[in-house]
Amino acid sequence: MKKLISEFIGTLWLVLGGCGSAVLAAAYPELGIGFAGVALAFGLTVVTMAYAIGHISGCHLNPAVSIGLWVGGRFDKKELLPYIVAQVLGGIAGAGILYLIATGKSGFEIGGFAANGYEDHSPGGYSMLAALVTEIVMTFMFLIIILGATHSKAPKGFAGLAIGLGLTLIHLISIPVTNTSVNPARSTSQALFAGGWAIEQLWLFWVAPIIGAIFAGLVYKFISPEEA
Amino acid sequence: MKKLISEFIGTLWLVLGGCGSAVLAAAYPELGIGFAGVALAFGLTVVTMAYAIGHISGCHLNPAVSIGLWVGGRFDKKELLPYIVAQVLGGIAGAGILYLIATGKSGFEIGGFAANGYEDHSPGGYSMLAALVTEIVMTFMFLIIILGATHSKAPKGFAGLAIGLGLTLIHLISIPVTNTSVNPARSTSQALFAGGWAIEQLWLFWVAPIIGAIFAGLVYKFISPEEA
Amino acid sequence: MKKLISEFIGTLWLVLGGCGSAVLAAAYPELGIGFAGVALAFGLTVVTMAYAIGHISGCHLNPAVSIGLWVGGRFDKKELLPYIVAQVLGGIAGAGILYLIATGKSGFEIGGFAANGYEDHSPGGYSMLAALVTEIVMTFMFLIIILGATHSKAPKGFAGLAIGLGLTLIHLISIPVTNTSVNPARSTSQALFAGGWAIEQLWLFWVAPIIGAIFAGLVYKFISPEEA
Amino acid sequence: MKKLISEFIGTLWLVLGGCGSAVLAAAYPELGIGFAGVALAFGLTVVTMAYAIGHISGCHLNPAVSIGLWVGGRFDKKELLPYIVAQVLGGIAGAGILYLIATGKSGFEIGGFAANGYEDHSPGGYSMLAALVTEIVMTFMFLIIILGATHSKAPKGFAGLAIGLGLTLIHLISIPVTNTSVNPARSTSQALFAGGWAIEQLWLFWVAPIIGAIFAGLVYKFISPEEA
Repeated sequence: MKKLISEFIGTLWLVLGGCGSAVLAAAYPELGIGFAGVALAFGLTVVTMAYAIGHISGCHLNPAVSIGLWVGGRFDKKELLPYIVAQVLGGIAGAGILYLIATGKSGFEIGGFAANGYEDHSPGGYSMLAALVTEIVMTFMFLIIILGATHSKAPKGFAGLAIGLGLTLIHLISIPVTNTSVNPARSTSQALFAGGWAIEQLWLFWVAPIIGAIFAGLVYKFISPEEA
Repeated sequence: MKKLISEFIGTLWLVLGGCGSAVLAAAYPELGIGFAGVALAFGLTVVTMAYAIGHISGCHLNPAVSIGLWVGGRFDKKELLPYIVAQVLGGIAGAGILYLIATGKSGFEIGGFAANGYEDHSPGGYSMLAALVTEIVMTFMFLIIILGATHSKAPKGFAGLAIGLGLTLIHLISIPVTNTSVNPARSTSQALFAGGWAIEQLWLFWVAPIIGAIFAGLVYKFISPEEA
Repeated sequence: MKKLISEFIGTLWLVLGGCGSAVLAAAYPELGIGFAGVALAFGLTVVTMAYAIGHISGCHLNPAVSIGLWVGGRFDKKELLPYIVAQVLGGIAGAGILYLIATGKSGFEIGGFAANGYEDHSPGGYSMLAALVTEIVMTFMFLIIILGATHSKAPKGFAGLAIGLGLTLIHLISIPVTNTSVNPARSTSQALFAGGWAIEQLWLFWVAPIIGAIFAGLVYKFISPEEA
Repeated sequence: MKKLISEFIGTLWLVLGGCGSAVLAAAYPELGIGFAGVALAFGLTVVTMAYAIGHISGCHLNPAVSIGLWVGGRFDKKELLPYIVAQVLGGIAGAGILYLIATGKSGFEIGGFAANGYEDHSPGGYSMLAALVTEIVMTFMFLIIILGATHSKAPKGFAGLAIGLGLTLIHLISIPVTNTSVNPARSTSQALFAGGWAIEQLWLFWVAPIIGAIFAGLVYKFISPEEA
């Protein structure tokens, strides 16, 4: 139960911090933080939670991460479903708090609410194929980073920095393509509030990250050294 | 006494560094650092002080942090009031140095002097309710990060980075809403110099961070694992 | 073989992440990440891979790094050629994935595709001599950082951060001069896709980084303390 | 001798990296790195050198740092003069390489060459008094960070990050005031190339940092805990 509350709080923070910075601060006139600031915010939600709750739940905050760790032999199948439920609920709670704050500004229009999309709903107008490739490859690399940095032969204590800054890097590359998901919980929470096209396109942001994560779990098993 | 001097110097630095970057450098024409630079500056005041004075005073630099640590069972009630006094005085000293520097530019107008506010004095025009929710939730998460990252089972030595970068993250999200406080000492020092509305609205930046911090102390006790 | 697959994946990531952020996100209207975001992205590819695969292959991701480590007495001559081949192939794979994503936007024109160049193909119009000096000196300092931070007397575990952030720093300085290489594999992959002038100028981005790396290996041997 | 070569190379890197990013990349049209990028670059020169040569020379790279460490009882008086000479020579070498690169662009005008100044030569037009206060206080805090983070009770290995990011923070605050020195070697190297007013105003960037450093050495002795 402590684990599930931790995953709930952590995913709440990922969505509130990452999508919140995008909705509230990215396009502020003159002084806004832009895509680079949003990329930093997403990454820092993971850095902060990795050190705050990593020793409680492992700090997955992402169904694709839980699945990739399971395929890689690092996570128990029994815990998979409860973790995913806690993550999705945490994401929705984070999006709800963000909605409450954002609507406190007169004239607020929800727009995409930082949801993920492709084609007409890709920030830069990228095709479904480009979105699919991007989300698969980015999630694949995210899991390679996670599996490698938490290996018993990797330097102790640094995994939280490497993984969180890895999420920053992924956003620096791919916000223009899909608004960057690599995380079905984060996509689901925003799609529920944005509605319409965001829900229609949500399938891609479950399918692609999970494919990438499974593939990474298999590849990492192959290149992984013996545990220390 | 060493502890109180350390808290005084540290909070002076938090205000001089964070509010100083906002007042002096954020809106510099063309090359200014924007909200993202201010967010980084606030966070780095905590990163630097955590490693410089963390082993002396614990590096709270913030009445809400001291209160949250006390509720979470990590800080002695007897030290609470002296710490808060040292923090507020340090903040005022930092704001005073900043005022001395800022007025060295001809034509300087004090404006908000990086004070915190809501409604007409929220940078983005957010309501009092949005400000209240934002400050409670952000301080809650700040204390979850602090309590978690300093737990005996968290990786050793990384707490200063996680906590400081957590403050950066909080600013990346919420500068447009309240100019970001989560710290009554920082709000008080700027309100004293800005005067007027900043003093009238100061109550919120004591009440909300303290509520958030108390709530975090209670929640963390519940999810916290046994000490190592 | 595990080592070579790791170098392949790592260099793929360096090119996809670094050049990808440049091609996809740097110049996005209003919200783009600019040269600073690209600099951060390049550095974070190395930070993330250092912790993910450093304990497998050493995480060179760069022929000049492998050569500099060999001259510095840290890498076996026998492994030099296979490492360089894996790096170049990984870079080409990364550029290929980037090409697939980038062409998913209608109206995409390949332009320089983040290739390195001088004179008319230097972003800021710098001469061949300036490019040569820049690439030699930057690679020299990159190898000094690598050789120093991985020395047995340097603090344990921090090398990945120091080296990756060193690559960020190098980009913060020198993108306007050559688009920053210090890495013949990264230059080769982009030149193959950009074609024309990029291939004609590619020689400089093999010669200069290798000269800088060899010189660093020799200098570091001279100033290096005894191993712990 | 190894120590002096290390200080020479390190200060060369501080000047080439910090001032180089300012001269070459800060104001690049549309994509330039701005003051925030320059702040990051200065800090990363110290982060990278701290891990690369910290175990050789201690990585001072700055006469004010050497003096502050001597006052704080951490550095031998005998080594003070040779260190300062190596730092100033290294700075000049860094500025020379930068000059060689910068003049490789047709139409280059040297302008301030990132020199430090006040009044008409302060980027934001700040008075001599504001410049004096800024340089004294910033160097004071820089030395408090250095003395604290390298104390035997501070977390092991993190000093390089805290100190380097502290220099980033100092630049985020004070570039508009003096272009930020806190380092007489860095000011001297740029003044020699910029000439004229930069040499006339150079006295302030020796006097103020040294006053701040001495004061920090005395204060830190007072608040410092027993060595571990």
